[in-house]
Amino acid sequence: MTRLDHTKRFAEAHAVRPVDGAAGLGTLNGIGLGPGDPELLTVRAVRLIGEAPVVAYFAKKGRRGNARAIVDPWLKPGVEELSLDYPVTTEIPFTDPAYTDALSAFYEDAADRLAAILSAGRNVALVCEGDPLFYGSFMHLFVRLEGRFPVKVTPGVSGMSGCWSTSGLPITWGDDVLTVLPGTLPEADLAARLARTDAAVIMKLGSHFAKVRRALAAAGMADRAIYVERGTMPGEKVMRLADKADDAAPYFSLILVAGNGRRP
Amino acid sequence: MTRLDHTKRFAEAHAVRPVDGAAGLGTLNGIGLGPGDPELLTVRAVRLIGEAPVVAYFAKKGRRGNARAIVDPWLKPGVEELSLDYPVTTEIPFTDPAYTDALSAFYEDAADRLAAILSAGRNVALVCEGDPLFYGSFMHLFVRLEGRFPVKVTPGVSGMSGCWSTSGLPITWGDDVLTVLPGTLPEADLAARLARTDAAVIMKLGSHFAKVRRALAAAGMADRAIYVERGTMPGEKVMRLADKADDAAPYFSLILVAGNGRRP
Repeated sequence: MTRLDHTKRFAEAHAVRPVDGAAGLGTLNGIGLGPGDPELLTVRAVRLIGEAPVVAYFAKKGRRGNARAIVDPWLKPGVEELSLDYPVTTEIPFTDPAYTDALSAFYEDAADRLAAILSAGRNVALVCEGDPLFYGSFMHLFVRLEGRFPVKVTPGVSGMSGCWSTSGLPITWGDDVLTVLPGTLPEADLAARLARTDAAVIMKLGSHFAKVRRALAAAGMADRAIYVERGTMPGEKVMRLADKADDAAPYFSLILVAGNGRRP
Repeated sequence: MTRLDHTKRFAEAHAVRPVDGAAGLGTLNGIGLGPGDPELLTVRAVRLIGEAPVVAYFAKKGRRGNARAIVDPWLKPGVEELSLDYPVTTEIPFTDPAYTDALSAFYEDAADRLAAILSAGRNVALVCEGDPLFYGSFMHLFVRLEGRFPVKVTPGVSGMSGCWSTSGLPITWGDDVLTVLPGTLPEADLAARLARTDAAVIMKLGSHFAKVRRALAAAGMADRAIYVERGTMPGEKVMRLADKADDAAPYFSLILVAGNGRRP
C-alpha cells in the first residue's frame, strides 16, 4: 500500500463505512487497554468489553498474553474468548521474508476468524495493549476488515504515557518537539534524530538496548535519559539510564528523554 | 532549570517524594481527562474524582473551561470546585516578557492556593484535558508542589490519540518514526522536520495554520494530511487537509500524517 493509497483508503472509509448493525453484521470494536494497570482502561473500554459476546486478543502461541492479563478483571463470566496466537514474534528477524510470510498468513487467518463471527451478526471486542492505532497489531486486522464490517476504535492510554506518568517525568513543555523512535533503527540514524529533537521516547528496545545507549551518548542525552520497565504493572522499574548496569530490556520497556521547553 | 537539573530533580523526587498522607498532608492528584469525550476518562480518573473533596481545573478567566465541561458528568454533588483562571492565554505573544511574567505570577498564585488546601490535609483532584505530563498546564504546578506534598499522576488518553482513533487512521506502523510538532515553529524548521519523519502530529495550529499548510506542501505531505477539529467532542470535524477551504483552526484542532511502515 503506497502513501497515497493511505489517504484514498481513509477518504473511502469515511465515505462508505457501514452503519452499525447494517445488514445484520456484527461490529468489530478495537479497544485500547492502556499501559498495563487494569484501572487505566477507559470507561468506554470497560462498557464495550462488558457488552461484547466475544472478546478477542493477541497472544504468543502457548502463552496467556499480556492483553488477556490486563483485561482479566473486566471479563464477565461466560464470555466467549478468542485467542489469536502469533506463530512467531522475535525468533525470525523481521527483515527475513519468512517473517513477513508467517505474519501475513497469521493476520489473514485471524481476519477470517473474526469475519466469520461478525458475519453471524455477533459483536467482537478485540482488546489491545496501549492504544490500538499506535504501533498496534490491531491495525493489521483493521485494514483487512474495515469497509466489510462496522469497525470502531476506542483509544487507550499509550504505554509511553503510562511510563512518563508513573515516573513523574513531564515529557514535553511549551514548544518542545517530541520524537518517538523504534530502537530497531541503525545507530547513526538514532543518534542523528536524537540530536535534533527536544524530547524523545525510544521503544522496541530488546536486543537493541546497547546500541540505543550508545546513540544516546553520541547525542549527549545519556545523562538525562530515564529507563522504565513494566510501567504501571507489577514489577515496575524506573531508573536513570546511567544507573542501569546491564543491557537487558524486556518487551515492556522504554527510554524517556524529557524536553526542557518554556516554563513560566 | 537546565537539562541536567531535570534528571537531578527526577532522581530527588524518586528518593524523597513524601508518602501518602505523611504528616497529615493532602495528596495532589493530577488527573488526565482524555481527549474530550467524558466516556474516555480512565476508571482510575473517575474513582479519584469521586473521592476528592476538592476538584480543581484550569480555565480562561470568565469562562467555564474545557476541563470543567469534560469532567461534568463525573462530579459528585456538593464537591468543592476550584477554578484556576488564566489571566491571559493568546492575547500576548509568548515571546513577550509580559506573557512570562503574567503566567509565572498566575502559576505561583495557583500553587499557593493548592498548597493551602493540601496543608490542611485535604486531597485535591486537579483535572486536565488530555494527558497531564504531555504539554500540560498541570506540569507548572507539579514542579512547584512535588517534594512539598504527595503528588500522583494519572495518565489520560492524549488528544492526538483521540483524534487518530476517531479518524480511523492508524498513525504508526512497524518501525515508523513519529514526530510531534508544535505549529508555532518557524516554517522552514517545520518543513525540514516533516521531510525527515515517517509520521507526524502537528499541534497548536491556531494562527499558524496557513504556515503549517505551506510547510506540509514543502515536505510533500499535504496530500496525505488529515485535519481534525474537536476530536471525540460534539461538533467534531475530520477531513483531508486538501478539502479544508479556510485557514481557521480552533484550539482543539490538529493535523495528522500517518506513517507507512511494515505491514505483513
